Amino acid sequence: MSNAIANLLSSLTLEEKASLVAGADMWKTQEITRAGIPAIHMFDGTNGIRKPESTQEMGLFADNIPATCFPTGVALGSTWNVDLLHEIGIALGHESRSLDTQILLGPGVNMKRSPLGGRNFEYYSEDPILTGELGAAMVNGLQSTGVGASVKHFAGNNQETEKMISNSVVDERTLREIYLRAFEIIVKKANPWTMMCSYNQLNGTYTSEHEHLLKDILRDEWNYDGVLMSDWTAVYDRLKGIGVGLDLEMPGPAQYNAVRLVEAVRSGELDIEVLNESVRRILILIDRTTSASPADHGWNVEEHHALARRAAAESIVLLKNEKKILPLRVEHLKSLAIIGRKAKNPRYQGGGSARVTPTMLDVPLDEIAKVIDGRAELKFAEGYHDDNRVDDALIQESVRIAQESDQAVIFVGQPEGTESEGYDSDHIHLPPAQTKLIQAVSAVQPRCIVVLCNGTALTMQEWIGQVPAVIELWLAGQGSGSAIAKALFGLANPSGKLSETFPVKLSDNPSYLTFGDGNHQAVYSEGIFTGYRYYDKKEIEPLFPFGHGLSYTTFEYKGMDVRTDGDVTTVQCEVQNTGEVYGKEVVQLYIHDEVSKLIRPLKELKGFTKLSLQPGETKTATFTLETRDFSYFDPKRKAWIAETGFFTIMVGSSSRDIRLSTRVNMDFGPLPEAGLGKYSLVGEWMSFSPSSKRVLLQFIDGMNAQITDKIHIDDKSMAFLGDFPLIKLIQLYGQEMLGEQSPDTIVQELIASVDKIQPRIPAEI
Amino acid sequence: MSNAIANLLSSLTLEEKASLVAGADMWKTQEITRAGIPAIHMFDGTNGIRKPESTQEMGLFADNIPATCFPTGVALGSTWNVDLLHEIGIALGHESRSLDTQILLGPGVNMKRSPLGGRNFEYYSEDPILTGELGAAMVNGLQSTGVGASVKHFAGNNQETEKMISNSVVDERTLREIYLRAFEIIVKKANPWTMMCSYNQLNGTYTSEHEHLLKDILRDEWNYDGVLMSDWTAVYDRLKGIGVGLDLEMPGPAQYNAVRLVEAVRSGELDIEVLNESVRRILILIDRTTSASPADHGWNVEEHHALARRAAAESIVLLKNEKKILPLRVEHLKSLAIIGRKAKNPRYQGGGSARVTPTMLDVPLDEIAKVIDGRAELKFAEGYHDDNRVDDALIQESVRIAQESDQAVIFVGQPEGTESEGYDSDHIHLPPAQTKLIQAVSAVQPRCIVVLCNGTALTMQEWIGQVPAVIELWLAGQGSGSAIAKALFGLANPSGKLSETFPVKLSDNPSYLTFGDGNHQAVYSEGIFTGYRYYDKKEIEPLFPFGHGLSYTTFEYKGMDVRTDGDVTTVQCEVQNTGEVYGKEVVQLYIHDEVSKLIRPLKELKGFTKLSLQPGETKTATFTLETRDFSYFDPKRKAWIAETGFFTIMVGSSSRDIRLSTRVNMDFGPLPEAGLGKYSLVGEWMSFSPSSKRVLLQFIDGMNAQITDKIHIDDKSMAFLGDFPLIKLIQLYGQEMLGEQSPDTIVQELIASVDKIQPRIPAEI
Repeated sequence: MSNAIANLLSSLTLEEKASLVAGADMWKTQEITRAGIPAIHMFDGTNGIRKPESTQEMGLFADNIPATCFPTGVALGSTWNVDLLHEIGIALGHESRSLDTQILLGPGVNMKRSPLGGRNFEYYSEDPILTGELGAAMVNGLQSTGVGASVKHFAGNNQETEKMISNSVVDERTLREIYLRAFEIIVKKANPWTMMCSYNQLNGTYTSEHEHLLKDILRDEWNYDGVLMSDWTAVYDRLKGIGVGLDLEMPGPAQYNAVRLVEAVRSGELDIEVLNESVRRILILIDRTTSASPADHGWNVEEHHALARRAAAESIVLLKNEKKILPLRVEHLKSLAIIGRKAKNPRYQGGGSARVTPTMLDVPLDEIAKVIDGRAELKFAEGYHDDNRVDDALIQESVRIAQESDQAVIFVGQPEGTESEGYDSDHIHLPPAQTKLIQAVSAVQPRCIVVLCNGTALTMQEWIGQVPAVIELWLAGQGSGSAIAKALFGLANPSGKLSETFPVKLSDNPSYLTFGDGNHQAVYSEGIFTGYRYYDKKEIEPLFPFGHGLSYTTFEYKGMDVRTDGDVTTVQCEVQNTGEVYGKEVVQLYIHDEVSKLIRPLKELKGFTKLSLQPGETKTATFTLETRDFSYFDPKRKAWIAETGFFTIMVGSSSRDIRLSTRVNMDFGPLPEAGLGKYSLVGEWMSFSPSSKRVLLQFIDGMNAQITDKIHIDDKSMAFLGDFPLIKLIQLYGQEMLGEQSPDTIVQELIASVDKIQPRIPAEI
Repeated sequence: MSNAIANLLSSLTLEEKASLVAGADMWKTQEITRAGIPAIHMFDGTNGIRKPESTQEMGLFADNIPATCFPTGVALGSTWNVDLLHEIGIALGHESRSLDTQILLGPGVNMKRSPLGGRNFEYYSEDPILTGELGAAMVNGLQSTGVGASVKHFAGNNQETEKMISNSVVDERTLREIYLRAFEIIVKKANPWTMMCSYNQLNGTYTSEHEHLLKDILRDEWNYDGVLMSDWTAVYDRLKGIGVGLDLEMPGPAQYNAVRLVEAVRSGELDIEVLNESVRRILILIDRTTSASPADHGWNVEEHHALARRAAAESIVLLKNEKKILPLRVEHLKSLAIIGRKAKNPRYQGGGSARVTPTMLDVPLDEIAKVIDGRAELKFAEGYHDDNRVDDALIQESVRIAQESDQAVIFVGQPEGTESEGYDSDHIHLPPAQTKLIQAVSAVQPRCIVVLCNGTALTMQEWIGQVPAVIELWLAGQGSGSAIAKALFGLANPSGKLSETFPVKLSDNPSYLTFGDGNHQAVYSEGIFTGYRYYDKKEIEPLFPFGHGLSYTTFEYKGMDVRTDGDVTTVQCEVQNTGEVYGKEVVQLYIHDEVSKLIRPLKELKGFTKLSLQPGETKTATFTLETRDFSYFDPKRKAWIAETGFFTIMVGSSSRDIRLSTRVNMDFGPLPEAGLGKYSLVGEWMSFSPSSKRVLLQFIDGMNAQITDKIHIDDKSMAFLGDFPLIKLIQLYGQEMLGEQSPDTIVQELIASVDKIQPRIPAEI
């Protein structure tokens, strides 16, 4: 900490300090003119800035100051492109500075536990590594401009239903491996200047006052030194919160809490140093966000729109493309039918705090017309109403123009308002009016392409068999109209990959049995088996697997090489564009631990890279793996454990399209063994050390001399007795010899007589 | 309590009392000659008595005194016949008395959580109602002879892996609805004279010292007044155990614990009345089991063997029978091939404490020969070795005799020792040698019948498509050889129904992700969705569903009638035997709660009855349902809740062969509503009462007058704000008006101004 900040801190009164740990109003911090402390402003935005006219306004249902609406999280997640996220971070930074915004309230990096999650469209993925790497790139880009990120929502907030009172019940291993992992990566790789706690309880405690989460893990383990703020109104008990490092309450001024903090310091209930620490972090934040080079004023709207278009194009996932029906070739087309209101009234973002008022807006129909440029006839039919009531007349009109045309493109997707902060969905079907439309149109026009505008996985069983091509456009922001036009005609080659599994049916989803139970509880019963980890392990065929995405070209994988040097394992392979057109390929690396003490997934994503390849071109994909990449979190040992032994390293084009695979025998040294304890099993005595085995067998010999029913140690009996704690064997067979001697004492004596080896971790029991 | 027992109790010294609460040795209680207190003997047996020669012997791996080996639990569970279980209970009682056994250590009534469970063969079902009703019938039969049952293992013991130290993590609702329900039924319907606690921990506490389980639930809620004993060595802390009602430690004498109890009473650590209570219950038990009419001496071995045969016949489940290939018609047969060692060396029971030394043993091959009685040629081939190593010569021999015969019957099943107390399995396939055998034989002999001798659900994907008929013989005890011979030739018509779901593959099982994790934990992550509840909800097609079983005749269901009178709903339907032969049909009743606050299964078994029907005969199946049958256990309210509204009542021949169904609107009065509390949601304020809605809207009007960003209550905003606690709405929008006034105070005042209605249950939060 600089001297200036230390001096500033010591110059503040207790009341001033108490006022600084809450906002001044909805969107800014307290200004203390006397001390020369300015207010800093923060506004929503996970894919664009949502700045109301006044800092007194929430503005959720209003138009706000225009800003570039980049693709939403689900679309950005599908790019698998860290450079692109970094670039968007910079663009967001420039817009923020131009709009006098010092903190942008994003990115949101929660895991997608269920496709029903209302806010899924804001989040990147069901996988923590993908999310963490993309989030870190975004934060690094943003903060390079002097604007702070606020990584949210920390943690265990994976549904909207009753999120302000709901208790997320998540076991420690699952927390560490899945729900905290992306945050951990971002903290370590990008040091976000702020983080935002969530509303929910985690294992019975609100996250805004959760000592284990905020103090033990975030501050002490990850060494996070930025400002931790509350989500808007997520403060329950302010005193508890500040005690565990929740620096800033939003919105403010929450004077009732300032009063409470002052009283608590005066009464000795709260250590002034605890308050000082939060104030200090806030002063550093203010300093960081205001002392950088002078703010840009204005940004080039066209340039950012172009970036939004490019990002949208890169997020498009080509889900299905039979008989290479795509791309459309305008030179072979006489007429094309465009069907569906969303081609004209695009749906390109979700609802709630992430809803941006765009600077410009591409309309798919217009953009398609531009590409065709009069070279073919273009027909349009609405297909369905905004409210999605079934209207046979609209369907008939669509059928007619589809029949009259060479090909048909149908734009469908969830109704406006379906995907939003504030509530979850209860199904993953298209509206029946749209399903009927697809069925009717594809029945008369086999050359039919479906374009999806939606923010979460959908089921398509009712219609996918009838259409040869499906494109996932997502909610891809203000440039999505141009992006889809280019993708349809091959002016851009789709290179997005699914960052979440599309199930055949909702009930296949791992969280299906408990999601939205509505009992003020969210029990994460699937544990670490979220997303593709579940589909793999349970041998459930998804509609489209995690990592899936087709291209207009083809890629060949070869020459896998794995080398370990010290703590770093490097995996390389060659990828060649074997098709006719330029394209990008997301090369994905998964590992599998062949034998482990705890159950592990069959595949865990540990790296990815996106290669740009001209036709015929070959590039090398390189991945580095560290010990952590081979580890699981052992909740008993409270440690990350990498087990020596064979791992399968897999490289592929999706989680279910593994192209190269090899086994490596990794040496992480001996597993930290628990010592022998009161309830150690006979099997553990036999295997712990030569000494313990000898002590055990000698003891049993001695016991056999004193009892009627002898203990025989052989394969058959060990199958039965191996899982007996030794103390139980004594209780069962040794009663004749025990008298008043307790078996507990005997076991303790036996343990004492075992030659000491140095266990790295003490006995569990 | 009788005066005699009170007097006896008061005559005992403290040391005598402390000695009485443990056994004298492996199999009997302490005798106190001075006081005229005899020892009583207890021996293993869930389907027969396992009595070693000496009470000093465990005898697990030895031959013990012969007793009738009735069908194992899985086979009895498949009979769905409460009268038969009652009859077997009486027979076991007679044998017990004849063998000077006062307590029979059974039945085992744990739920089958996974087909991997080593002890599944001892247990009845994956369903608690079926298990509870069968268990109660067995206990009532047994105890009617003056022999006490010991219902085990209480509770949450659903695996063998590390069962002595493993912690079963089970949420309260799941405990109540699934894992405790059978015990509750048996306690209430049969008042077992003893119960046996399990080894495992339940939610972090060993069951032998578990206050919530033993005291709150078993004693206080269910009013259980019998003796609670430990499983053999399941005592961890004796003092804690006696404090929560664990009366008897087994085996004894465990003098070290007697010493400890005496010291604890003397030091005041243990209230003497607590010890007295346990001694009193033990004295009553001794009185009950020794004061009944004089013991029988001897039993009719032939009669009990006949009963064992009859029970085995009734437990057989005809899984598949294409083109009516069964029953075999000896008059049309020239030759029959019997293949498989198990036809000659039958496997008819599992391993561990339930292993009985039988009085007689029917061999399938011999029994088949008796039925054929020289009318056709009978050939036999071993097919596979005992150790199941693949031997092509044996397979070739089998293929040859199958080719030479009109039909082939292949006896297969898990290797001896696979299913046992002490360890779990890690797969549910037949041994590869047997799979190959079936494939090879069925390739040359399409008229091929597979007979399964196993104790838990198997997967059959590798071969079932190639054989037209499959019979599940289970481990059906010493009479199983005769039973299968009769079933094959139609001398007995199979009437068993699966009491557990057979999955297509192991990974379909609800507990698959966590079963046997080996981290000293068993997390019951599937919750209430065990067995068919899971397959239904997840829309997974099982290989054979719960309740499935074919017959040589057909049954027609009609005339469903549902009437509610007071608290009792009576469901009736007519079932007619529409086939050519006599048969029995298990009529199953399931319910579904159409709308409920908590997620519920799509079907829950609530009743069953087994009807015997001559060809053409019609009988009425009658079921009665009480409020509990419509209820779920609400863990927040800690109460069984039946919600007013529509239920679907389904009657069928299996859980997936529903024949009749009707909806009934049940009136259980208003749901006990939570009152309004600090964190009540805006939506709850709107719906709680007209008064609360009025108070809320007036308050918002008043707030709007003081704030810039007005709150609008309409459908769109309510979708977003409805899940906000009111206090958060004030924190979010009301900062301008609050000053030092805390939103907490405001909410409390608002609650106070709502007209009181009488909530039956207080606010949750």
